[in-house]
Amino acid sequence: MNSVPKPALGSETSWREDFAVGDKDAVVIVDHGSRRQESNLMLNDFVEMFRAKTSYSIVEAAHMELAEPTIKDAFGKCVQQGASRVIVSPYFLSPGRHWKQDIPALAAEASKEHSNIPYIVTAPLGLHELMVDIMNDRIKYCLRHVAGDVDECTVCAGTGKCRLYS
Amino acid sequence: MNSVPKPALGSETSWREDFAVGDKDAVVIVDHGSRRQESNLMLNDFVEMFRAKTSYSIVEAAHMELAEPTIKDAFGKCVQQGASRVIVSPYFLSPGRHWKQDIPALAAEASKEHSNIPYIVTAPLGLHELMVDIMNDRIKYCLRHVAGDVDECTVCAGTGKCRLYS
Repeated sequence: MNSVPKPALGSETSWREDFAVGDKDAVVIVDHGSRRQESNLMLNDFVEMFRAKTSYSIVEAAHMELAEPTIKDAFGKCVQQGASRVIVSPYFLSPGRHWKQDIPALAAEASKEHSNIPYIVTAPLGLHELMVDIMNDRIKYCLRHVAGDVDECTVCAGTGKCRLYS
Repeated sequence: MNSVPKPALGSETSWREDFAVGDKDAVVIVDHGSRRQESNLMLNDFVEMFRAKTSYSIVEAAHMELAEPTIKDAFGKCVQQGASRVIVSPYFLSPGRHWKQDIPALAAEASKEHSNIPYIVTAPLGLHELMVDIMNDRIKYCLRHVAGDVDECTVCAGTGKCRLYS
């Protein structure tokens, strides 16, 4: 991939409501999955943030492998809750093999039991203009911490890791 | 990790300039590194976006493993360009082993040759409020595409992958 996906946030504010989320659109947020339980639990935190900040009425977490719920589990839960369309959203930075092959294959498999429910696999998160803001925000927060102005963020809290080394 | 790192974007707009980027602050943006060259090249695109949107005068790409430039290469390049502090920023979503151990160890190793240059390893990108906006933006763009309103984004361009399946 040589070019940057269109961020075009400004222009998106003028989208017609037709393209807005439908009441029966469900979102399955899929991360890689880990043997580390704390990593799997982190996805639940993201799902909570996503639910709180958006208007989707059905949002489910799923792990691509190594942990449950699987994509199939989550797809089924969405249908049970009345989804008429399932949006599979990979919590991945880059369009690697997992995004190109593994997640589409698992979504296809999951949809077999619900052939009347269309689904889509969305683009990965990286190379979005806002990702620059996130990184810059992390940097500024860390610099504020080492300057003594703020506590460690919750990622570093209690580890003593957020400091200047030399 | 059970809680969400403080996003506090609103309050950050009031940061004193003391915590702003110094002229001699360098940023090393580190991804995992891949055997797939296109994946490594994608980091360069992100570094370009980061340079264009921020005020850091020295920004270098690095790969944790599997590809060059290494963290040591990038750290050295920053010092050559006059960096007085190096900010190592992991292009990772979660605070897993790579963030906790591998990148700090590689940064420490890299800094041995530049003992007068302090460095810091910043927090990972995930669980930031803006990540919700990024995911929602991806979803909306895909839905607009399947509704026939916009072209495929550059991630999907030419693949025919961005469509409703059932």
